[in-house]
Amino acid sequence: MSLIKQIISGDRRALAQALTLVENDYQNSQNMLAEVYTHTGHAHIIGVTGIPGAGKSTLLNALVKLMRKCEDTLGLLAVDPSSQFSKGAILGDRIRMRDLLGDKGVFIRSMATRGELGGLSSSTAGAVDVLDAAGFDRVIVETVGVGQAEVDIASNAHTSIVVLCPGVGDSVQAAKSGILEIADIIVVNKSDYPKVNVTKSYLREMLDIGSAVQVGLSETQNMTCDPHLVHGTSGAGNNSWQVPIITTVATSGEGVSELFDHLLAHYDHITSTGEITVRRQNRLRAIFESRLRKQLYTKFSQMLSEDYFLRQLELMMVRETDPYTAATECMNNFEINYIGDED
Amino acid sequence: MSLIKQIISGDRRALAQALTLVENDYQNSQNMLAEVYTHTGHAHIIGVTGIPGAGKSTLLNALVKLMRKCEDTLGLLAVDPSSQFSKGAILGDRIRMRDLLGDKGVFIRSMATRGELGGLSSSTAGAVDVLDAAGFDRVIVETVGVGQAEVDIASNAHTSIVVLCPGVGDSVQAAKSGILEIADIIVVNKSDYPKVNVTKSYLREMLDIGSAVQVGLSETQNMTCDPHLVHGTSGAGNNSWQVPIITTVATSGEGVSELFDHLLAHYDHITSTGEITVRRQNRLRAIFESRLRKQLYTKFSQMLSEDYFLRQLELMMVRETDPYTAATECMNNFEINYIGDED
Repeated sequence: MSLIKQIISGDRRALAQALTLVENDYQNSQNMLAEVYTHTGHAHIIGVTGIPGAGKSTLLNALVKLMRKCEDTLGLLAVDPSSQFSKGAILGDRIRMRDLLGDKGVFIRSMATRGELGGLSSSTAGAVDVLDAAGFDRVIVETVGVGQAEVDIASNAHTSIVVLCPGVGDSVQAAKSGILEIADIIVVNKSDYPKVNVTKSYLREMLDIGSAVQVGLSETQNMTCDPHLVHGTSGAGNNSWQVPIITTVATSGEGVSELFDHLLAHYDHITSTGEITVRRQNRLRAIFESRLRKQLYTKFSQMLSEDYFLRQLELMMVRETDPYTAATECMNNFEINYIGDED
Repeated sequence: MSLIKQIISGDRRALAQALTLVENDYQNSQNMLAEVYTHTGHAHIIGVTGIPGAGKSTLLNALVKLMRKCEDTLGLLAVDPSSQFSKGAILGDRIRMRDLLGDKGVFIRSMATRGELGGLSSSTAGAVDVLDAAGFDRVIVETVGVGQAEVDIASNAHTSIVVLCPGVGDSVQAAKSGILEIADIIVVNKSDYPKVNVTKSYLREMLDIGSAVQVGLSETQNMTCDPHLVHGTSGAGNNSWQVPIITTVATSGEGVSELFDHLLAHYDHITSTGEITVRRQNRLRAIFESRLRKQLYTKFSQMLSEDYFLRQLELMMVRETDPYTAATECMNNFEINYIGDED
């Protein structure tokens, strides 16, 4: 039986093997991912991001348990920059998930992305497709940082959850880092802490400002007739969806069922309005361009020897060239020609 | 007088103009950056990153004021994902810096990087060079998020400061996000909050584990004889520098002069050990490769029409192709040839 048939039939060892292939072997995973793709399109893809220390892992643990009670199956992918310091911490998180071990309806996997450049990590996208093909109802992608790359990963989901905690300072920081913009659902966890209402009002105000700006943006963008820009990175304010702000206490489970209800409501909303098609297309385009970029640079840099790089660096250090000119000169030594069919 | 001569002569309007050029106009800024580069190499480049809500801006405000008292001049670059929500927040931060307005020894600038793909943002690197050429003693690059891209920006400095606050949860998250790894100096701000000692011990332990892992890594990597990997993204454990953990209360200024002392000590250390040369080379290589990547993809995608992308997306949506195969097929329609001199 082929690896893909095994995955579809529910073989968890085959699934783990496929994910390892996606993570480690760009070349050889491609044929598999191409075949995997034909079996995708059923899962609800959920992106989860949020400020460090907001209790994201505890919240996900509670959410996953609730989903299992409702007989939803799910794959959870923790996108991990795999710092040398992080092994213990990540392990700790996974251990909190131990009550779920042995349950065939859940599959949890940490995925290293260190060193992968470019917005959407192509191995993350591939792993999501594998979990989708494996038949899980929902695939959750959890990112660890709150930077641009993490926002890109989360925003390529059907539904993006942003997890914060009380404290306006943190919310301001969240607004600054650009993660509010992609939120379909905002969770204020640790809502038994003081100042939760101040935080909620602040966030609501931010969202209102954001919607106002977005409406302005959409109008301008419609004028340029570029259908890709209108929906941008998706999320808040792009359609008639009102971003809910949900308060939770992950440790006690408070608010978690409300979060699940909103997840279901959002999925219904994007399905009935057709917004999900836009999000699917955005995701496909992001994967396509990300892989183009990567393959292009790989092909190109293989033509340059390590000696070439070292020589350029030497010249820069003695200021006989500079990195800006050197890059352009390097580019000018190559020509790119179209050799495909006329089309 | 040329723009660059004006910048060097201390003309702040010319400086602002040059930074705008770097930020907005990739093509036309290149010649300027090439010339700017010949005037660089004097500034101490400091990267500052840290978890949201740690009080980074208040700390920087206090640090900058102290530096000015010591007659250090400095340029501060706030790398900002320029979210639609963030305008107010960023403005708020800048307002806190208002006591510095009118002081010619300080120059503060927010820099948008939204949409820039690939580790080191090339416009950020260019802006740092412009500030260096303008003659500031120190150039501080502050990043807003804590993701991989932000870590890349901060790690391309001579000295990287990571700002945290008490609470082990946050520190665990910091370790996970990979930012501890790049720290030359760790600051635990808000050290008047409880649990500061617990946080310090936890961080010290993490750093010790990190150093141990790093020593192991360096040995392995030495065996592979790849000089680039040994120093990696620089930072903790790469040389004989002991990463200090400094406690501060930014609002009262407590600990800020200790932080400044450690900044000076670190600069002395890397200068006397020659480590600064390694860091300079790493930075140049990062700029060079980042610009190569960007120019390559620009050149390439100009050969593909928007119609081409739309047609591919249509085929993907009806599952006649998939993004993995489509990217490879697209690549195969092009050939890249070396047309430069034999060398």
